[in-house]
Amino acid sequence: MKRTTEKNLMVFSGRAHPALAEEVASLLGSGLVPQDARAFANGELYVRYEESVRGCDAFVIQSHTAPINEWIMEHLLMVDALKRASAKRITVVMPFYGYARQDKKHRGREPISARLVADMFKTAGADRLITVDLHADQIQGFFDGPVDHLMALPILTDYVNEKYGDQPLAVVSPDAGRIKVAERWSARLGGAPLAFIHKTRRIDVANEVVANRVVGQVEGRICILTDDMIDTGGTIVKAAEACMADGAAGVIIAATHPILSDPAVDRLKNSSAVEIIVTNTLPVPEEHQFDKLTTLSIAPLLSRAIREVFEDGSVTSMFDGHA
Amino acid sequence: MKRTTEKNLMVFSGRAHPALAEEVASLLGSGLVPQDARAFANGELYVRYEESVRGCDAFVIQSHTAPINEWIMEHLLMVDALKRASAKRITVVMPFYGYARQDKKHRGREPISARLVADMFKTAGADRLITVDLHADQIQGFFDGPVDHLMALPILTDYVNEKYGDQPLAVVSPDAGRIKVAERWSARLGGAPLAFIHKTRRIDVANEVVANRVVGQVEGRICILTDDMIDTGGTIVKAAEACMADGAAGVIIAATHPILSDPAVDRLKNSSAVEIIVTNTLPVPEEHQFDKLTTLSIAPLLSRAIREVFEDGSVTSMFDGHA
Amino acid sequence: MKRTTEKNLMVFSGRAHPALAEEVASLLGSGLVPQDARAFANGELYVRYEESVRGCDAFVIQSHTAPINEWIMEHLLMVDALKRASAKRITVVMPFYGYARQDKKHRGREPISARLVADMFKTAGADRLITVDLHADQIQGFFDGPVDHLMALPILTDYVNEKYGDQPLAVVSPDAGRIKVAERWSARLGGAPLAFIHKTRRIDVANEVVANRVVGQVEGRICILTDDMIDTGGTIVKAAEACMADGAAGVIIAATHPILSDPAVDRLKNSSAVEIIVTNTLPVPEEHQFDKLTTLSIAPLLSRAIREVFEDGSVTSMFDGHA
Amino acid sequence: MKRTTEKNLMVFSGRAHPALAEEVASLLGSGLVPQDARAFANGELYVRYEESVRGCDAFVIQSHTAPINEWIMEHLLMVDALKRASAKRITVVMPFYGYARQDKKHRGREPISARLVADMFKTAGADRLITVDLHADQIQGFFDGPVDHLMALPILTDYVNEKYGDQPLAVVSPDAGRIKVAERWSARLGGAPLAFIHKTRRIDVANEVVANRVVGQVEGRICILTDDMIDTGGTIVKAAEACMADGAAGVIIAATHPILSDPAVDRLKNSSAVEIIVTNTLPVPEEHQFDKLTTLSIAPLLSRAIREVFEDGSVTSMFDGHA
Amino acid sequence: MKRTTEKNLMVFSGRAHPALAEEVASLLGSGLVPQDARAFANGELYVRYEESVRGCDAFVIQSHTAPINEWIMEHLLMVDALKRASAKRITVVMPFYGYARQDKKHRGREPISARLVADMFKTAGADRLITVDLHADQIQGFFDGPVDHLMALPILTDYVNEKYGDQPLAVVSPDAGRIKVAERWSARLGGAPLAFIHKTRRIDVANEVVANRVVGQVEGRICILTDDMIDTGGTIVKAAEACMADGAAGVIIAATHPILSDPAVDRLKNSSAVEIIVTNTLPVPEEHQFDKLTTLSIAPLLSRAIREVFEDGSVTSMFDGHA
Amino acid sequence: MKRTTEKNLMVFSGRAHPALAEEVASLLGSGLVPQDARAFANGELYVRYEESVRGCDAFVIQSHTAPINEWIMEHLLMVDALKRASAKRITVVMPFYGYARQDKKHRGREPISARLVADMFKTAGADRLITVDLHADQIQGFFDGPVDHLMALPILTDYVNEKYGDQPLAVVSPDAGRIKVAERWSARLGGAPLAFIHKTRRIDVANEVVANRVVGQVEGRICILTDDMIDTGGTIVKAAEACMADGAAGVIIAATHPILSDPAVDRLKNSSAVEIIVTNTLPVPEEHQFDKLTTLSIAPLLSRAIREVFEDGSVTSMFDGHA
Repeated sequence: MKRTTEKNLMVFSGRAHPALAEEVASLLGSGLVPQDARAFANGELYVRYEESVRGCDAFVIQSHTAPINEWIMEHLLMVDALKRASAKRITVVMPFYGYARQDKKHRGREPISARLVADMFKTAGADRLITVDLHADQIQGFFDGPVDHLMALPILTDYVNEKYGDQPLAVVSPDAGRIKVAERWSARLGGAPLAFIHKTRRIDVANEVVANRVVGQVEGRICILTDDMIDTGGTIVKAAEACMADGAAGVIIAATHPILSDPAVDRLKNSSAVEIIVTNTLPVPEEHQFDKLTTLSIAPLLSRAIREVFEDGSVTSMFDGHA
Repeated sequence: MKRTTEKNLMVFSGRAHPALAEEVASLLGSGLVPQDARAFANGELYVRYEESVRGCDAFVIQSHTAPINEWIMEHLLMVDALKRASAKRITVVMPFYGYARQDKKHRGREPISARLVADMFKTAGADRLITVDLHADQIQGFFDGPVDHLMALPILTDYVNEKYGDQPLAVVSPDAGRIKVAERWSARLGGAPLAFIHKTRRIDVANEVVANRVVGQVEGRICILTDDMIDTGGTIVKAAEACMADGAAGVIIAATHPILSDPAVDRLKNSSAVEIIVTNTLPVPEEHQFDKLTTLSIAPLLSRAIREVFEDGSVTSMFDGHA
Repeated sequence: MKRTTEKNLMVFSGRAHPALAEEVASLLGSGLVPQDARAFANGELYVRYEESVRGCDAFVIQSHTAPINEWIMEHLLMVDALKRASAKRITVVMPFYGYARQDKKHRGREPISARLVADMFKTAGADRLITVDLHADQIQGFFDGPVDHLMALPILTDYVNEKYGDQPLAVVSPDAGRIKVAERWSARLGGAPLAFIHKTRRIDVANEVVANRVVGQVEGRICILTDDMIDTGGTIVKAAEACMADGAAGVIIAATHPILSDPAVDRLKNSSAVEIIVTNTLPVPEEHQFDKLTTLSIAPLLSRAIREVFEDGSVTSMFDGHA
Repeated sequence: MKRTTEKNLMVFSGRAHPALAEEVASLLGSGLVPQDARAFANGELYVRYEESVRGCDAFVIQSHTAPINEWIMEHLLMVDALKRASAKRITVVMPFYGYARQDKKHRGREPISARLVADMFKTAGADRLITVDLHADQIQGFFDGPVDHLMALPILTDYVNEKYGDQPLAVVSPDAGRIKVAERWSARLGGAPLAFIHKTRRIDVANEVVANRVVGQVEGRICILTDDMIDTGGTIVKAAEACMADGAAGVIIAATHPILSDPAVDRLKNSSAVEIIVTNTLPVPEEHQFDKLTTLSIAPLLSRAIREVFEDGSVTSMFDGHA
Repeated sequence: MKRTTEKNLMVFSGRAHPALAEEVASLLGSGLVPQDARAFANGELYVRYEESVRGCDAFVIQSHTAPINEWIMEHLLMVDALKRASAKRITVVMPFYGYARQDKKHRGREPISARLVADMFKTAGADRLITVDLHADQIQGFFDGPVDHLMALPILTDYVNEKYGDQPLAVVSPDAGRIKVAERWSARLGGAPLAFIHKTRRIDVANEVVANRVVGQVEGRICILTDDMIDTGGTIVKAAEACMADGAAGVIIAATHPILSDPAVDRLKNSSAVEIIVTNTLPVPEEHQFDKLTTLSIAPLLSRAIREVFEDGSVTSMFDGHA
Repeated sequence: MKRTTEKNLMVFSGRAHPALAEEVASLLGSGLVPQDARAFANGELYVRYEESVRGCDAFVIQSHTAPINEWIMEHLLMVDALKRASAKRITVVMPFYGYARQDKKHRGREPISARLVADMFKTAGADRLITVDLHADQIQGFFDGPVDHLMALPILTDYVNEKYGDQPLAVVSPDAGRIKVAERWSARLGGAPLAFIHKTRRIDVANEVVANRVVGQVEGRICILTDDMIDTGGTIVKAAEACMADGAAGVIIAATHPILSDPAVDRLKNSSAVEIIVTNTLPVPEEHQFDKLTTLSIAPLLSRAIREVFEDGSVTSMFDGHA
């Protein structure tokens, strides 16, 4: 009894950020698989698929936004349900990888939460991951299997180039540890000069006050402050001020992941930055929207990556050999 | 270079139910290990121990209460941190085992969440589990390692025997699937008669109304309605009413785990039950306390089990060969 | 060098119950793969397939009947041989799951044999399981992979409905722990009343004699005594007598798995039951056949499930969303 | 709370060969742990320890004799029960390693049963193995953990040396593939000449009759026919005849493992061998005893190995650096 | 979104023996996948594929020749890169299996390196192995997955038969432990007589000089000295001399794997052997070639095996049911 | 039979850098365990311990220096031999972690070699790692178990502080991606200013010549150029020149790991740096020594860490809560 083998793409979405998943599915020309997902009275989550998923090539999208532990658990339960329902291959799509910042022991007796997250998805049944702009590239190595690591950089830099490319720019990293990202920006912005913010103890003042010093030349330039994510916005807003204090002509903030925890929105609104550019890897609720905030969609990138994975194409080719 | 090997008991507590952990540690004559546990702005959790835990025999207590996914994740991170900080053996103490009710696929394409929970703790680094009154005994087999399954039954039945033992009793299961538990109660209450509530479709009424029928004799008896947990209380309160309708002399509700999700407290307060007896495997916040609610402490049981495990004694002997 | 991928269904059978496997293969329109299976002089088993199995979608059928340890080992060796011979996917078909009753530690220091069985098949190379009417549904969670849990209930209840549906029926569970199964029967038999047998110590008699009390109303009704299996038949035959003593109009015994260990056949023959209805998940040897024993074939159910699995159809749909 | 760590030796025995286990335990000065081990009516096995085993250093002895699959399963269940009852370390003692002869695929589509056995014990919870005279040394590598591979050679050769050492000897391998063992015998018997039996097709006779040719010089010598095991005895008895036909002064058969499947006893009794020397790694039932059969006890070797393992001594030193 | 599944054969080669890989790929009608493979200044190796490998059926060929640890590491890195780049299935092709001789603990406290090699390839991501003439057949069981074990025997014996088949032959094993291989040669050479070399201590000479004794008849015959590999050639060249000393008419040496470590080439050149026949599982550099050395290509065997594996054919059938 | 458990520290050394291991063992007051370690003619490595290691707490030291693949393989074989010889706990000590630079996919279709190395040691039997100054802290998360990550920073900065602390200093990172390390240096050197070298395309010159620009102020200061390792020295020597060109008062180079691959020694000798400070995590052969090279011993750090691990002390406390 022989049959030609068929593969069947099915896209699943948790409840954290349905708009993104719908956009992805729509670009793929497929719908989202209908499901019954909800919380019981005591907070335990439940999920059940309303169609047969046997033998499918499953892509399970969930944004790890607040309440983050709930959405990660829902993501894990969705994977477990797919495994036990005989999905053929399970690809976990996490546009923002939760707990990525705890990617090492900063001090003794801490967990390495990002590794734990990778292992838990493996345990639940994930065969592979798709994610965007990891906090550290090394996190790819935490998962025991293929990881397609997508980059929002081209989307963000194309936008900046078009809008600000004719003015003198500088790329500024808000933190010494993330200059490598700024270097990549600089390369795509025609070699714009680099700078970074160095936090120093001011020796001249008692009580160890910390000062932000700009290392590098920003005077007269529009500073592109870049980071992978904006959480409470404290560091990046102070960095913006330091740039302005050093004579910058203006400041633009650009980051892939808009976590925007309180009081990020207020800080950003009131900051000297003229524009804040992010993607929609995480949902920004209506009440957090504000004029200076520009959101570029990551959905075309995700849907193209899913298509390449499904059709045995090349994700690397989407980034000229990188990723 | 030789040394005599020492073992060192250390007790850790998550933030879900510190009162219970403190009571356990105090009964053991040890304190809780000081730690820095908190949530970041976006909800990601963080934990760090403030003392060396190298080589210790760690017992990590966390109650899986609401917000349950957050506390389970904290529990997992605590285990991961202990593993990476070189604890010698890690025993996870979960007085209430989260997601225990999803211990099978009730219908196709569901997860088996209770197995996933077991596997995640294994992945994080747990060597063994201690838990109380699992929803199904089979969950012991979900964990790949030793499980010490404790029973609150003696604590609860001793209390009932002392207070109500001189009156005619019946033990009633609110659900056909849990009569086995009622049988154990009956055995410890001098062979009190058994009954259970059978949900039937009332054929005489249109629209498929469901009726609760008492199967067994409860007339003139004080009914002990027993279950492993009380969540929203709907089933058990209806069972109480069915007993009263069948002529019961009174109803007492007894369960190990007081989940008490809304609107359990109101339902129980207004029910015909004269007393609701639970343990403190889960915290009952001040505002949920009410007159008829009696809480017996599970801490003596947990601390004795921990001591037996630490000293290579016998947990089985605590229950006359069971567990 | 590219090829269209084909999948190739192959059905294998151990030597425990070839008649069932042949019936299944015949319904599928495929033969059984020829093999050389035998025991060496010291009892070590040997198996070798006489055709190439490379790349096939293998379904390996074995009934865990006596000598049960021998047949389980043969089952395991068959899986190992398939794995090493490059079968693409291996589905273990165990119509009766051996050691299912040891699904928990009833007392301390016992094995959880049902979990060990699941793990051994995983170790040998099983990708998935198909089984029928597990002793406890939770055993699904013992296997780390998809389990298709089939139900013989519709087959059995259809037969009963047709033959006895016009008489007043009651569904009786011979054990308090298995009323849930009886509830499912009741639902499919038009809401027939439920009862169960409660074993009690008779207090009025010395020496702790145990009495079987019927809890529920059976008078004047034909009692359908239901269970998942009949082993030595002791419990169920006593239950039949208790029903008759309580005024039942007659007793019918129905169970999925006819283990029928000695002296089950004699007990059943001599019992007050008018018919004993089972399936052929286990072989009933010629000499154990008797007039009152009705055997319904499970082969149509197994073959349909195998076909759905092979063709990425839906097993859940075979049971209206359950399984 | 600190304690000095103690280790606690406990010896367990399956039901296959209690006499050997008792002899081992007695030499260790410890008893066997009392247990309840038995078969249910359908052949499923059950085991429960009657004492706490928490934290013990467990040695679990079982001879893989007929009914071999039953005893292997009992062995596995004993390990599982120890794991779940919190034994600290579990050493599986298999004086004869079942299925050792199926240590490779002799032909395509066979299992490698000896690897499966190793993996199943690992899965059940075994930390380490002790075994005697493996059919192939490579089987040590099948287990993922320490294997103490003991040799009966010194016991057997000391006996032969003392009884026959003053006569001209030859060491003969009954099979070309096992001459390496014969070489070790030769080295311990003062360099006695080697020979082996070569099975050839006799070309002068039609119908492919097989002849046993002795390769090497045996004339006038007492031939020590050596092998690791005697199963049905066919090969070794024919080898004895070939030696006698070539002018041997006498034949002695020596092997570690007396499987003695039918018709081994008759063949050996009636053979030209003057003595058959074995150990008691496997039980020889009363009715299989016969005059020419000499049984040397392996218990001193096993008990010394267990003691060295328990006390962190050296097993290698028992064999001058080998093993 | 459905697609017909295609499988795509891709052949990869490490840098150890590109000529063989090219010959294999050419016979398959496919090229080798272009890659960037090199060593960094400190010896760390690097590999990157220059084409997408997503979803391919990968066959990764590397000869484990000197510097052997470097080539094994390159082989492992190639597998890791394939796994992380989403190859669908990874078959490791090792014509010579490195470290195969350390397949057991010859003495206590040694590694079992051949098992470690198998486990490392599994860890890196290998799904299956193809290899030729293992030092011991049991090594198949070291890998947890399918192993296609190919035999060069037919290639070698066909050559010998054609060239020397009309002369009186004897098959001689240079070592007692490898007579089984000689038996297989004998069977394919029309039942030629067998002999082996036995190393003995010469008792008549002081200082424990070792003598090589031929056991079996070689007088007047052309001796085919067979082994799986020739490393330094010491043993086999001494065996050749022993044969000549016993009156052999000539000696031919035949082995699958030409390791030819120093001073093998000189020893073989100067030996009494008239021809040395090997395959090209390992590269023989130009400067090691010499007149008496005949190299038969293993590429047809490898390419046919790869094709059978890719097309779900039968490798066993290539060897009449063996392998 | 009870015994008090003892733990027994044993230190093992591969052959890559025996001087370091001897210094560590000597500081611990223990010798190195004698062993037989060597290469066979074809490069396969062999190791055997000459003392019993049963039950020991093993620390296995190997420097991953050239020929690096050989030493890594020896390291792995040493671990495998310890596992199979029943060491109780195996700690792998790799002062320099081989392949640490390949800690992510820099481009598609590369391996993540640093993860593979971690997994291979786990597979071989490693329970834990001790290492010094990982190329990226995230590599800690590649190993599934405890990693003690030691820092040479205090050793290096203490030396610099004492010798150059009274002069105006600047800390310069030779690469944008490693400024975080420079920040730690700055913190320990009293807040010395930071700078980094930014590689830019010089737009004014054709052919894409790359220029090194110093970002930050170095004029008139002694620049401490810091990195984790010096391989060929190209980057760091060019960075030294860039500093001098920008008016630095002098340059000192400091790094933990002296790989010093060709032509590092010549470059460093001829550079403008006045001193090059390294540790002995890797051996620097006699012929690579030169006047400006200062080597500080890492042995006190390693021996203290081993002692803390053995005695269940605290490694974190060695670094004020970090590590």
